[in-house]
Amino acid sequence: MTEARIYDAQKIKNLTRLIFTANGIPEADAETIAEGLILSDLRGVYSHGVVRVPMYCERLRHNLVNRMPKPTLKKTSIASLLMDGDNGMGFVVGKQAMAEAINLANDTGVALVGVKNSGHFGMSAFYLLQALIADMISFVYTNSSPAMPVWGGRSKFLGASPFAAAAPGGEYGPFVLDMACTVTARGKLKYAAQRGETIAPGLALDSEGKPTTDGNKAFHGVILPFGGVKGSSLAMLMEILSGVFTGAAFAGDVRNPHTDLTGPQNVGHFFMAIKPDLFMSLDDYKKRMDILFSRSKSCDKAEGFEEICIPGEIEARTEANRRENGIPFTPDVIRGLEKEANLVNVSPDLD
Amino acid sequence: MTEARIYDAQKIKNLTRLIFTANGIPEADAETIAEGLILSDLRGVYSHGVVRVPMYCERLRHNLVNRMPKPTLKKTSIASLLMDGDNGMGFVVGKQAMAEAINLANDTGVALVGVKNSGHFGMSAFYLLQALIADMISFVYTNSSPAMPVWGGRSKFLGASPFAAAAPGGEYGPFVLDMACTVTARGKLKYAAQRGETIAPGLALDSEGKPTTDGNKAFHGVILPFGGVKGSSLAMLMEILSGVFTGAAFAGDVRNPHTDLTGPQNVGHFFMAIKPDLFMSLDDYKKRMDILFSRSKSCDKAEGFEEICIPGEIEARTEANRRENGIPFTPDVIRGLEKEANLVNVSPDLD
Repeated sequence: MTEARIYDAQKIKNLTRLIFTANGIPEADAETIAEGLILSDLRGVYSHGVVRVPMYCERLRHNLVNRMPKPTLKKTSIASLLMDGDNGMGFVVGKQAMAEAINLANDTGVALVGVKNSGHFGMSAFYLLQALIADMISFVYTNSSPAMPVWGGRSKFLGASPFAAAAPGGEYGPFVLDMACTVTARGKLKYAAQRGETIAPGLALDSEGKPTTDGNKAFHGVILPFGGVKGSSLAMLMEILSGVFTGAAFAGDVRNPHTDLTGPQNVGHFFMAIKPDLFMSLDDYKKRMDILFSRSKSCDKAEGFEEICIPGEIEARTEANRRENGIPFTPDVIRGLEKEANLVNVSPDLD
Repeated sequence: MTEARIYDAQKIKNLTRLIFTANGIPEADAETIAEGLILSDLRGVYSHGVVRVPMYCERLRHNLVNRMPKPTLKKTSIASLLMDGDNGMGFVVGKQAMAEAINLANDTGVALVGVKNSGHFGMSAFYLLQALIADMISFVYTNSSPAMPVWGGRSKFLGASPFAAAAPGGEYGPFVLDMACTVTARGKLKYAAQRGETIAPGLALDSEGKPTTDGNKAFHGVILPFGGVKGSSLAMLMEILSGVFTGAAFAGDVRNPHTDLTGPQNVGHFFMAIKPDLFMSLDDYKKRMDILFSRSKSCDKAEGFEEICIPGEIEARTEANRRENGIPFTPDVIRGLEKEANLVNVSPDLD
């Protein structure tokens, strides 16, 4: 393996944006997509960063995604909206849906936007952070293509379907939780597979249902849920709320964005925004968050821990550092970007 | 250990109700409490059933719970209400709060009721089932007394704080998920401790931070989260939404209902109801739930599984069976009930 090199986040983002505009995506939407992807890399979530650019572009080349979608919105109750994503890029549809949830919650206190006919929307935390900027508590759920067996099963059925939620904080920063219901992220297996790396035991079964530590075999097998039946049940809840409930594809019908080029994905999402000051002033709420985090961080440490971190704290620190100092990328990721750039006659300027 | 004997659910419930009325709880409220407790035993969730009657009664004897609370409701936005439970029994406050969430959601589509100044409310599924009878999707969150370390800590700080959610179903029945964020329920450790039983390895640390399989040592030590940092993060989210957000006690301040008789608990809850037919007809929604469950159940089985069950399915089957054939209770549980009955001059009639 060759070593990672440091790249400027802004330059990688610009190249990503140019690749998408050259693929026919409108300027503002390409900006949104690039923003979502680079944010993942900035936060250390490589699995959902620019490593995925070739996958998204491949789907665009096959005309499986609508480059200029016109998502429609329908008010379905006082506190809910249904968005039909018109098969647009998941980032574009998702960002608009979260913006609508935030707007409506400003009126109603709590608001839900269900989304159907969307695509893979990247890292869920992208939308959590959007809600945090508006000082909103949020839930972001999505379904995804089969990656994990149902509890008791051995074939892929449920998605890795992340559970994501965030709550604004005070001086200690916000609570940001974005976790796959799998014991590891599918993107991380993909990453290990691409690099021929091994994975820890207990994470996945191979395609014949046997435990494996081979990244490639795991990527083509099934990932196990985190926490056994509990993680599996949470994944089914994500499928119900994002897929069954919204009218999107579900129960195994969401197409794999990497391997299934036979049609659109029809991914479903569930965005909820809640005002944090429904029951007290925003200031009091934030002070209470600080008390929770301050007390959490001063708990006696378990063996092997030098610091207690709040969910999202490490990612926020990584982001701040990488915005300042750049992002380390391995050559394969950069080659993937350069290849996509060449295909659409964009000149990479990364140095 | 002596063997369990089968008891009639209705008789155990009646005795439970009489014990609470004799302790000064109004008739209708005692009925609610008995209903919540017996439902746990009917569903096989012994940890939250009548085994807890002595604990609740002890708190009543110490006047730590308001026997005749007057919960107040405040509309805090179009889709939210804040309930002050007036330190009533958690079952009574919780049932009323869920009823308010359902009523409001019938108007607004989505509704949230935050609750403060409540007490231990038993099994979360009690409220999920209440919402299911009204054909509502629901989330039921609560915080609880310290039972588990924060991730990286070794002292009790976060509660076992269950994550609970349910969604109506069709012919296959509903999805009902009620899971502690601990790798096992604290009530189950209590149960093992009371009976001098051992527990599986990997579930808990003793009071000195060492792994233990001794039920009693585990009950006096710390339970570990399920799924490592993921379960721990979910527990912190429950604390934020139920405690920080609502104005209840939080960050370690909820009193242990068993061991801390110095004051009220001030538990916080978060009840959300969502109409399942916001985005399609109820009939279409239920048909889609049936497709999800039918496909789930017909997946190829993993080794060791003869059947794939939907979350809540085993509990529903147990409930149907026990309503018909009675509930097996061990003598210690019955003795606990009889002792409480004798203290308030109620004659047990269990045969």
